[in-house]
Amino acid sequence: MLSISPDRAAVAARMLEIQPFHVMDILARARALEATGRSVIHMEIGEPDAPTAETIIQAGIAALQAGLTHYTPALGLPALREAIADFYASSYGVSIDPARVVVTTGSSGALLLAMGVLLNPADEVLLADPGYPCNRHFVRFVEGRAVNIPVTAQTRFQLQAEHIAQHWGERTRVALVASPANPTGMLLSKTELSALHAAVSQRGGTLIVDEIYHGLTYGVEADTALAVSDDIFVINSFSKYFGMTGWRLGWMIAPESYVPALDRLAQNLFLAAPTPAQHAAMAAFQPETLAILEARRAEFAQRRDFLLPALRELGFDLPLAPEGAFYLYAGCGAFTQDSRQFASDILEQAGVAITPGLDFGSFESDTHVRFAYTTTLPKLEQGIERLARFLRSGA
Amino acid sequence: MLSISPDRAAVAARMLEIQPFHVMDILARARALEATGRSVIHMEIGEPDAPTAETIIQAGIAALQAGLTHYTPALGLPALREAIADFYASSYGVSIDPARVVVTTGSSGALLLAMGVLLNPADEVLLADPGYPCNRHFVRFVEGRAVNIPVTAQTRFQLQAEHIAQHWGERTRVALVASPANPTGMLLSKTELSALHAAVSQRGGTLIVDEIYHGLTYGVEADTALAVSDDIFVINSFSKYFGMTGWRLGWMIAPESYVPALDRLAQNLFLAAPTPAQHAAMAAFQPETLAILEARRAEFAQRRDFLLPALRELGFDLPLAPEGAFYLYAGCGAFTQDSRQFASDILEQAGVAITPGLDFGSFESDTHVRFAYTTTLPKLEQGIERLARFLRSGA
Repeated sequence: MLSISPDRAAVAARMLEIQPFHVMDILARARALEATGRSVIHMEIGEPDAPTAETIIQAGIAALQAGLTHYTPALGLPALREAIADFYASSYGVSIDPARVVVTTGSSGALLLAMGVLLNPADEVLLADPGYPCNRHFVRFVEGRAVNIPVTAQTRFQLQAEHIAQHWGERTRVALVASPANPTGMLLSKTELSALHAAVSQRGGTLIVDEIYHGLTYGVEADTALAVSDDIFVINSFSKYFGMTGWRLGWMIAPESYVPALDRLAQNLFLAAPTPAQHAAMAAFQPETLAILEARRAEFAQRRDFLLPALRELGFDLPLAPEGAFYLYAGCGAFTQDSRQFASDILEQAGVAITPGLDFGSFESDTHVRFAYTTTLPKLEQGIERLARFLRSGA
Repeated sequence: MLSISPDRAAVAARMLEIQPFHVMDILARARALEATGRSVIHMEIGEPDAPTAETIIQAGIAALQAGLTHYTPALGLPALREAIADFYASSYGVSIDPARVVVTTGSSGALLLAMGVLLNPADEVLLADPGYPCNRHFVRFVEGRAVNIPVTAQTRFQLQAEHIAQHWGERTRVALVASPANPTGMLLSKTELSALHAAVSQRGGTLIVDEIYHGLTYGVEADTALAVSDDIFVINSFSKYFGMTGWRLGWMIAPESYVPALDRLAQNLFLAAPTPAQHAAMAAFQPETLAILEARRAEFAQRRDFLLPALRELGFDLPLAPEGAFYLYAGCGAFTQDSRQFASDILEQAGVAITPGLDFGSFESDTHVRFAYTTTLPKLEQGIERLARFLRSGA
């Protein structure tokens, strides 16, 4: 049922290694089932369920009413770049020159720019497996090579300095880590980030830190890598904590010396990030907005606090309590050695949509699935009931 | 004065060949002069001066009010893909399967996707010089090689089938043409497009046709390459005729066999195009909107009809009357052999901002400048007066 059709066209070689998200097949099949009247609990979707906060929407509407529909500078609206810099001062106590802020079309745009200015063909990038699948594809897109390093609960599913020492080679140029990470939800402490930065820097490389799930941490605040060094590419987004997914807006704090190259690459690849989104995002850091977002964060925390013990109770392997994002990456080896078939069966027979491990790498992906808690607590409870019934039936 | 600072960082080799837009220096200097109280007539800006049509803005506002802020599918909102397909039927009498419509983040997104699925490293792309500068940079970004072919008034500043025959080599994979073209404003007829397609196809290559200035033609309608063959990548945009620049929305009609590869590349590089823009664009094809856009087109025609003879009168070389876009690419060899210095002098001494030929290639770029008629007729008249005075003074 979950089949990927091979290309019938003469596509470039890179496309043989750029995979679709398997979750898209799950989602499409879930929608097809719903169209026939079946009920599906969606725990596959990596997107906050609430619409954008009303204050941000109103700022977007005001910008449209004022006719603010022209291009902005390639690096973003100066006022937004300043607001982002101010946010680092107020939230993290870190001082950032607004000139280092690059406003991008989602964090996707930031990742493409970073890889574009850093990688020559055959340059290697160290990545954690499991990890966000697009990362290795951004690397491949510019003809670099992703080196996927298996990570386990022993290092809290994160690359650590010892991985850098072990896997750094002659062609390695970059290490990319995420905190909190997708799909595992684990953080990197300031001490770990410092050790990573030292390990990468002493080898003449560059560290990229994906902080797009910052703000969505529960009972703990995430450290920013910018507190460690100005020499790190830090990527963030208005999509997750700020709930602006469809607007397509993110940002990057870049080392100062790279800004001219990033500027002209952004001019050429994107012209600029969407203007309505940039004006709307000016409201993202206001106290009224932050109050809405903090209430949503508390709700995510409640969902995690329900889902984590419930999945463990059912027999899923979750050795660590994820500290952030809105995912639980659960071992399902007690039930299956084929997580893709398992996810398919759960959807077809139990009406619960989840993502097979395959989307996040190849290391133990056959015995892992990802649960997203991007739906309401009652829906999650219903999903757990359905899963319990499915697993009891011994499918 | 117009200086490009070299990178101080260890950037990837591609960045040595990816140039900034020199017009950005002109624009920055113009804004600086304005900040000191000087008046500047802007004829450098490649963006329609009017804000987005009210009907489109209202559709965007309605979408935001309805909380439509989540991701769309990677290929775009199904309803928008259908509306675009319908537009080809109603405007050109060409039947397009909506499944072939790829909604993108500006036409920039479409160009990146097309190059990504078509080019292996060292594959060559034939391009006209002068031409849109980003095109060769998209090629370079994915490690392809742009082959810039000088074009003159003799072929109406377009690549023709004979150029394909002459320049096609073992590694040539793609020819990219634009109709109307930037900076020359010249069209390609259906006959010329057919001959281009035949020349490229019989060599096993792919033709890409940039139609982003369609709708902005004066006294003539542009032919779409889709009337020639389903086997062509056609790129279009909501930015120019539809006046949605800052929203960042474009599209591509792709050969059917490439759609799966484009889908998974779009998923990975972009996730999707901006959602508010996609909903707003649903209003773009409505009769009320088209009435507004046709009135704007008539105004562009008036501006061209004023500016073309006025520049010729001043001694600029414009052998052909451009049929579309909002540019006049004018030979300035009667005044200078250094168009960059000339543009700088005109800005500093006459308060008129124009773009030096350098932004569009290297062929005769030292003796060409581009005038954009993206400002009002009274401003254009004022600009011509200032230019006349400047040229009389023998600077």
